[in-house]
Amino acid sequence: MSAIDEETPSLGKSQARPEPKGMVRVFLKYLRPPIGEFHAVCLFVFVGVVASTNVDTLSVAVAHGLAIALLVAVYGGISGGHVNPAVTFGVVIGGRCEVFIGLLYIIFQLLGGVFGAALARMVLTVGYTSTGNVTNVDLYEAIGGGVPQLAEGVTAWNGVFVEAILTFILVLTVLMTAVDQQLSIAPLCIGFAVLVDIIVGGSITGAAMNPARSFGPALVAGIWTNEWIYWIGPILGALFAGGSYRVFLAKSEYRILFKDKSE
Amino acid sequence: MSAIDEETPSLGKSQARPEPKGMVRVFLKYLRPPIGEFHAVCLFVFVGVVASTNVDTLSVAVAHGLAIALLVAVYGGISGGHVNPAVTFGVVIGGRCEVFIGLLYIIFQLLGGVFGAALARMVLTVGYTSTGNVTNVDLYEAIGGGVPQLAEGVTAWNGVFVEAILTFILVLTVLMTAVDQQLSIAPLCIGFAVLVDIIVGGSITGAAMNPARSFGPALVAGIWTNEWIYWIGPILGALFAGGSYRVFLAKSEYRILFKDKSE
Amino acid sequence: MSAIDEETPSLGKSQARPEPKGMVRVFLKYLRPPIGEFHAVCLFVFVGVVASTNVDTLSVAVAHGLAIALLVAVYGGISGGHVNPAVTFGVVIGGRCEVFIGLLYIIFQLLGGVFGAALARMVLTVGYTSTGNVTNVDLYEAIGGGVPQLAEGVTAWNGVFVEAILTFILVLTVLMTAVDQQLSIAPLCIGFAVLVDIIVGGSITGAAMNPARSFGPALVAGIWTNEWIYWIGPILGALFAGGSYRVFLAKSEYRILFKDKSE
Amino acid sequence: MSAIDEETPSLGKSQARPEPKGMVRVFLKYLRPPIGEFHAVCLFVFVGVVASTNVDTLSVAVAHGLAIALLVAVYGGISGGHVNPAVTFGVVIGGRCEVFIGLLYIIFQLLGGVFGAALARMVLTVGYTSTGNVTNVDLYEAIGGGVPQLAEGVTAWNGVFVEAILTFILVLTVLMTAVDQQLSIAPLCIGFAVLVDIIVGGSITGAAMNPARSFGPALVAGIWTNEWIYWIGPILGALFAGGSYRVFLAKSEYRILFKDKSE
Repeated sequence: MSAIDEETPSLGKSQARPEPKGMVRVFLKYLRPPIGEFHAVCLFVFVGVVASTNVDTLSVAVAHGLAIALLVAVYGGISGGHVNPAVTFGVVIGGRCEVFIGLLYIIFQLLGGVFGAALARMVLTVGYTSTGNVTNVDLYEAIGGGVPQLAEGVTAWNGVFVEAILTFILVLTVLMTAVDQQLSIAPLCIGFAVLVDIIVGGSITGAAMNPARSFGPALVAGIWTNEWIYWIGPILGALFAGGSYRVFLAKSEYRILFKDKSE
Repeated sequence: MSAIDEETPSLGKSQARPEPKGMVRVFLKYLRPPIGEFHAVCLFVFVGVVASTNVDTLSVAVAHGLAIALLVAVYGGISGGHVNPAVTFGVVIGGRCEVFIGLLYIIFQLLGGVFGAALARMVLTVGYTSTGNVTNVDLYEAIGGGVPQLAEGVTAWNGVFVEAILTFILVLTVLMTAVDQQLSIAPLCIGFAVLVDIIVGGSITGAAMNPARSFGPALVAGIWTNEWIYWIGPILGALFAGGSYRVFLAKSEYRILFKDKSE
Repeated sequence: MSAIDEETPSLGKSQARPEPKGMVRVFLKYLRPPIGEFHAVCLFVFVGVVASTNVDTLSVAVAHGLAIALLVAVYGGISGGHVNPAVTFGVVIGGRCEVFIGLLYIIFQLLGGVFGAALARMVLTVGYTSTGNVTNVDLYEAIGGGVPQLAEGVTAWNGVFVEAILTFILVLTVLMTAVDQQLSIAPLCIGFAVLVDIIVGGSITGAAMNPARSFGPALVAGIWTNEWIYWIGPILGALFAGGSYRVFLAKSEYRILFKDKSE
Repeated sequence: MSAIDEETPSLGKSQARPEPKGMVRVFLKYLRPPIGEFHAVCLFVFVGVVASTNVDTLSVAVAHGLAIALLVAVYGGISGGHVNPAVTFGVVIGGRCEVFIGLLYIIFQLLGGVFGAALARMVLTVGYTSTGNVTNVDLYEAIGGGVPQLAEGVTAWNGVFVEAILTFILVLTVLMTAVDQQLSIAPLCIGFAVLVDIIVGGSITGAAMNPARSFGPALVAGIWTNEWIYWIGPILGALFAGGSYRVFLAKSEYRILFKDKSE
């Protein structure tokens, strides 16, 4: 079963049809989905970094959240619309994505994050004349290159914990609404998870919940402080979400506990 | 008829299939749904208490409302996605949930509220170094432990009345959109009810509309002032909503007045 | 054909079934729908007036808009979810609601508006102790009883024009998304129309677009300045929307121009 | 195949039926769709210009975004709900709209933009008495006639680039969610694209992404500074989005690369 069949949140159109073969199969399974993820993460990180020039948390949360909602809907039929290495990891743990496909996705997602952050840097620096009131340095430096950072006084373990629990909510939402139930409103729910999480954790850790969102801007800005927190936290959150799903929450076919012949 | 069949807002997939038996039936009916409710309320109260560190009512309303929307969608297929003892009470009154299942739910919801409030307290206190500008005491104390409180000058009976009418709107939305009509957008409507209610009542009673949302933080913070208001109000609101549904609004099968053979 | 069959935005469940008869028919066609409209408008006006204590336009717009979204979803299967005499008038003009039913609706909607405004006044006045910082007079007087008013300098004809064009958008959305296409997201679109209209016209006319929203608070507060504007404007807007629909936009069955046998 | 069949985002109702003929066909294919686009753009530009009197970016973004969401839903079944010459251009490039229909749409969209901007000017100027605190000149001049402008210091090529990438996101969303997958939530996703884009680019270029949104207000206000940027940027963005769709992202039937007989 291919990744694009398993994870796609597009509903109601699964009809028996002959499996594609040869180059078409390679294209549909190994080529287009990772490129789609590159594409989606690039747009997401660009949007996220530039939106961070808004000072109110609500606007930043809405921009990230609704961007995820639309990107999941746009790329859902192409790649499943993960847009996030932590989501891909959680879906692999949950048994709904092949490991090899997952690795491909994560590589392309990280590349997309770097590319999106580079575009954002370009727009916010050399895109301004140095004589304007907003000089070509201010804006990009003011937002610290869009790299998520711990707020003052937050301990490292707390940062890991908050990123973990927020990512848990996000990955659980992906697994339950898009992968498992394939609800028509799944992209909205996934976007809402990001939106809510940023309102909740934005003033603690920045609420990245996405290693590609932290890695790309970090590489482009050369700011690596606490980068590890934005990998360990989301990985732990995704691990618990994927595990809860696999053991307990999935429908019988994918569940480990109390499998049900009649289900 | 099991709770998960009656209340689930997931649509369009009801096909005749053999009833599960033995341990699988116990798991699907008595074990997984209450644990799911524990899970959902824990995440909701964590999100709600930490989000209360935002000072603008709109952000707090959006965080609570959209969190409910996604949790209803995530746990809808597991437990019906009540996430609230008042909702469970209203659904029991409305004749769409067994009393025993309802009691189980409420116990697990209250436990979830305590656990979520404890996680939030941990994140907002010992997760900060005491030398930072935001000390490990400020944030949690500043929001009064996230316990809903009456605004200055609001009388107790007004608090009960406002909580009752706001909960009435919420429970009616659950009964009509998710339980009765099983609309695909039901989780969004339920989330909107919470969001709107907080904009309306946030500056009067805090708009808890959920005894687990008030009980958990109250126990963890040791603040019991007016706690009874956040039980009596929601119970009255749920009673009227469940009653209106049962007597008047439900489709014929579940309605008391003017039952219709042809419906 | 009954009103509840014609206007309901609940989708995909229309199957041939015997028409109900006798008292059940009276209940389903002439009793429950108007009472549902009373119910819905009462909740809407209560929510709207109390939400007006928020000072930022965005919160007020979100509260009114999402309240309409959920009320349309909740009462859609009961009465079509008009929640507004202007909507009822537009749907009658559009040929999708019987005149007698429409008159019944409008009477009950106006009564609901009065009742909702009275509840809001009670909550905002006698619900506060006079010794608090917010006295029992301030809040209700500060919002002028929640009665929509022209901003300073706005001429009466401009008020009528703005109310007309905003109501046109609202009624057109109802007719095209709920009545004609019966989209699953219709309640959201209708709510968005109210939300957007308030951001647009809130600082000009208050963007009532609903005679029950202006009449109820006006009667309860005894403030009748410019009340006629909030009747003439919405009536004109609904007339144009209903007319555009009837003549031009409706599907062939209900359209006057270029009727299509094959459609 | 007619434009209204190809592009409509209204779902699940495509059943074989006889093609309409004669005047009815002309009406349904060449008359009603362009007039619908005129209609929709007129309302959108009116809403957009008047909403610009709000000072916070979030309100302006929400007004534009949700207005697009509801207009796409309202006119989706009439014209496909483009509401934007750049969208029409992208859909033509993507091979999902005839060139002649596209040209018709663009002409009517531009006329709609002019008409909407004229209505907005009327409401914001002669609709105020000159003796009020807000005089009949202030409001319209304060928002520069609602014409999108580059922020201080932004270079022209950066303006083009930002408009291009934001329009790319918008047109891609239209092509993938409405045209290709015909998701029930497509109108919401398209609205979210506009909403997010304005939060992201509002403080750089104003985030018009729509030549009718810039042309109409520019003509009515007589402000032509940088107007070319709001044509070249969106055209480039739509070209890339339509091209990506055609070559790579479309389902096999409309895709150029790796066409799949079995798909």
